[in-house]
Amino acid sequence: MTYSADNININTPPPYLTLASNEKLPVVLSIAGSDPSGGAGLEADVKTITAHRCYAMTCVTAVSAQTPAKVYSIHKTPKDVVSQILETNLQDMKCDVIKTGMLTVPAIEVLHEKLLRLGENRPKLVVDPVCVATSGSSLAGKDVASLIRDKIAPFADVLTPNISECFILLGENRKINKLQDIFQIGKELALITKCANILVKGGHIPWGDEGEKYITDVLYLDAEQKFIVFEGKFVNTTHTHGTGCTLASAIASNLARGYCLAQSVYGGVEYVQNAVSIGCDVTNPRIKDNGPINHVYAIEIPLEKMITDECFTAPDVLPKKQVASAADKIPGGNFFEYLINHPKVKPHWDSYVNHEFVKKVADGTLERKKFRFFIEQDYLYLINYARISCIAGSKSPSLEDLEKELVIVECVRNGLTQHERRLREKLGVKDPDFLQKIQRGPALRAYCRYFNDVARRGNWQELVIALNPCLMGYGSALTKIEGKVTAAEGSVYREWCETYSSSWCHEAMLEGEKLLNRILKTYPPEQLDTLVTIYAEVCELETNFWTAALEYE
Amino acid sequence: MTYSADNININTPPPYLTLASNEKLPVVLSIAGSDPSGGAGLEADVKTITAHRCYAMTCVTAVSAQTPAKVYSIHKTPKDVVSQILETNLQDMKCDVIKTGMLTVPAIEVLHEKLLRLGENRPKLVVDPVCVATSGSSLAGKDVASLIRDKIAPFADVLTPNISECFILLGENRKINKLQDIFQIGKELALITKCANILVKGGHIPWGDEGEKYITDVLYLDAEQKFIVFEGKFVNTTHTHGTGCTLASAIASNLARGYCLAQSVYGGVEYVQNAVSIGCDVTNPRIKDNGPINHVYAIEIPLEKMITDECFTAPDVLPKKQVASAADKIPGGNFFEYLINHPKVKPHWDSYVNHEFVKKVADGTLERKKFRFFIEQDYLYLINYARISCIAGSKSPSLEDLEKELVIVECVRNGLTQHERRLREKLGVKDPDFLQKIQRGPALRAYCRYFNDVARRGNWQELVIALNPCLMGYGSALTKIEGKVTAAEGSVYREWCETYSSSWCHEAMLEGEKLLNRILKTYPPEQLDTLVTIYAEVCELETNFWTAALEYE
Repeated sequence: MTYSADNININTPPPYLTLASNEKLPVVLSIAGSDPSGGAGLEADVKTITAHRCYAMTCVTAVSAQTPAKVYSIHKTPKDVVSQILETNLQDMKCDVIKTGMLTVPAIEVLHEKLLRLGENRPKLVVDPVCVATSGSSLAGKDVASLIRDKIAPFADVLTPNISECFILLGENRKINKLQDIFQIGKELALITKCANILVKGGHIPWGDEGEKYITDVLYLDAEQKFIVFEGKFVNTTHTHGTGCTLASAIASNLARGYCLAQSVYGGVEYVQNAVSIGCDVTNPRIKDNGPINHVYAIEIPLEKMITDECFTAPDVLPKKQVASAADKIPGGNFFEYLINHPKVKPHWDSYVNHEFVKKVADGTLERKKFRFFIEQDYLYLINYARISCIAGSKSPSLEDLEKELVIVECVRNGLTQHERRLREKLGVKDPDFLQKIQRGPALRAYCRYFNDVARRGNWQELVIALNPCLMGYGSALTKIEGKVTAAEGSVYREWCETYSSSWCHEAMLEGEKLLNRILKTYPPEQLDTLVTIYAEVCELETNFWTAALEYE
Repeated sequence: MTYSADNININTPPPYLTLASNEKLPVVLSIAGSDPSGGAGLEADVKTITAHRCYAMTCVTAVSAQTPAKVYSIHKTPKDVVSQILETNLQDMKCDVIKTGMLTVPAIEVLHEKLLRLGENRPKLVVDPVCVATSGSSLAGKDVASLIRDKIAPFADVLTPNISECFILLGENRKINKLQDIFQIGKELALITKCANILVKGGHIPWGDEGEKYITDVLYLDAEQKFIVFEGKFVNTTHTHGTGCTLASAIASNLARGYCLAQSVYGGVEYVQNAVSIGCDVTNPRIKDNGPINHVYAIEIPLEKMITDECFTAPDVLPKKQVASAADKIPGGNFFEYLINHPKVKPHWDSYVNHEFVKKVADGTLERKKFRFFIEQDYLYLINYARISCIAGSKSPSLEDLEKELVIVECVRNGLTQHERRLREKLGVKDPDFLQKIQRGPALRAYCRYFNDVARRGNWQELVIALNPCLMGYGSALTKIEGKVTAAEGSVYREWCETYSSSWCHEAMLEGEKLLNRILKTYPPEQLDTLVTIYAEVCELETNFWTAALEYE
């Protein structure tokens, strides 16, 4: 026999990883129906539990044929099978939390009997009393609802009905006009179901007027007679298939990991908010009115990691692609000019570099407390900027690029010293520990979260792009009003203006322009829009940052 | 009604994340049996597909009651249900790859008919001809095996039998004495099954003698008449429940993402190797002889991320824990002394700082090519060290700590300049592009992968610990032989020895000691063993690094 054979060595895991050898994964058992299209039910549960680095077990109460378009049929699992699955899972495996979704009458009977038998040794229990799908279609009869209420809910650590399910459990519909109406429902449900903690999910009923709508999930803790209201932005999307199952599974996973209920719900609501906002495109295009959420948004692609890490053997199997240069797509070759004139960027760049805040500093009319707030926030911002520049250094392709980032850190360090001086000498700060006590405002938080996310997920080029508007914008804004600064000589306002129109700053901007052209050469042209989008978004974050100072009271 | 209510604002996702809005997730449909205990079957598939950031759909061919201990019962899904699930999934959803696991006769018939009907428009197909579980128990009769061979395999892009399944498909047992026996099986199976690509999984048959055993997965590509042998370390564990399903699903996920078959198999084998090596502890302690692999080893815990990122609102809900100081656990307060005398570290530290390599450099007897190899590898190592120090900077708790890391980068930069000079002036390097052409050897790769992994997963303290042995060990090793260096005056050997016994190096070591004591104060005492383990492992990697140079030919 003739043959050709290649030999590829498989890596052992980095030893650091094996600190977790025989890792004690928290275990969550999901008892629910199978949604073969993957967006809801048992499949959503397994995906969510997995995305929370927990170990999922299952008990299929029914196999449905369904997609986001329609529930076609439901084929219930016989009672003896459900019973044997629960029995063997609980006998052979560890189990920290049980999460229930769509239950059948036999499943309820079996589970009730097991819970009774386990007594105080039973795992924690999260009950999503599934009766009505997010799409509105009924998934269970009233008999199931009352059985869940009587036989399962009393064992639960938390019950997570949506509003329709609340009405079914209460036995009547209610008008919801204000938050207190939901508080009332939470209290009554705790009484009726004998479950001490009720999470009334409010994803279906957005509050607010024409403008920004928001949604609330309300957790009622009976023992403390306390409500916690989780308030999130309403996402205008039809891709909400499976949100209920996902939230309950996320809560179950967080509980299994040892977080308290309030923390677990918080984490779950954040996860669902992201999964809904990001969404995914997996349905046939003619299914328009419903689609699944994105359970995997935070997960890294393993093979992509291996290919980009030169310390794996992957590059031997997978020759690196030659990256064409995006520079060819830029007429004139000046990436900075291209960016700020790009239709996606221009409006944000313009409102950034022509910001009212700068004008008011320049003519000395800005209220002092607003300026002080700005310097405080900018102080924390610069610390974050220094950290992110370090990460850009670690990701840069050459030693020279790495060193350039460190020069930037050095400049930032000087900026921090100047800010500290401004605060202490000019802005009336007396407390020696003041700098440690500054709190982040919402605009700064949003900006830093953006930076941190690009640092974690993005490559060197994307990080450089994200860091650039701060450098170029301050210089551009102050250059625009050069010679027109009327704030008093020697004032902190004038001195601040001069910093960003100094020759030092001009030189830094020239370096910034060069760096933009440099990253372009190593970036795939077909992804150029990613860089443009980041630039636009960061310009918007900069605008918001100045607006926050202007509006500070 | 009286109540107290807390209001918690939920973050919107960082805008950078929404670059992926309505993300085009690759879709993999798994047709398989449910393993409620979660380690194998459909559950392993959904976990694996999820861990690959793909979208999983399912079609349950049978619901079993099983755990790693035993298959208790199998309850087959009726033909009309399987048919409706496949029909509606393929009609309403996108599908890039179908992966089959345990099939029943009705499932085979339905799938065969669908594949015929779809013709060239059918998704890619990965067929794991499940007949025998990893534990050895038979999962399907011979009728199923021959039906898979005749009705499904001809449509497959790859068939992934284990050795027992190869024998069933071949209709006879074979002796496997050498790799060529497996090559022969691959070729014959391609002929018999009309499937052009065969992956013969070899996880059950470790090669090699008493010492290090290894396993091979052999991919036969019929079109190219080529074999690719993936060779990995044999992991001595009983936790292998679900490896087959997992490998096939990982391959399917990689194919769905657009990687070629060889790449997809490579990525799958790496993933399974890690999942097996790391394992997880989820079975009842009396189930000793089998357990599941760890599908989630690379997944980050979402809530943990939110708690440690100050730009989330999470810290408002979740007050930061006060961390006790591990310093109280160290008698005398000198962490460095504690570490190098710790029973876990001492043997590795001792073989590191008393290494033969150093003695041979010091007395000038080391072969020149071995020293040159060492300097080349160390050059690449130092570049990695600089990158990792940048990341340590980004993770450090204060500006002062951040700046200390940058001082280290500066020193590393000097080290690189010295190495370049040594190579060009003393070690005969002429090629101006030489530095770009150095290839990483296995010892360097292992060391850098370790660094990269700590940088990604670890916190500041863990990263500082990982970076420390390099600094302290070179100084310690060279201090030990101070005054005993007999290599010729002016030689590269003597000069190298002097670098690491210089007063500059002593000062750097004192700084290193201080840094060790500093991290200890901010580290939870109950996790101290993690730091000790990292220190021991890095000392071992250092030893191996010198050994590799000594053994270079």
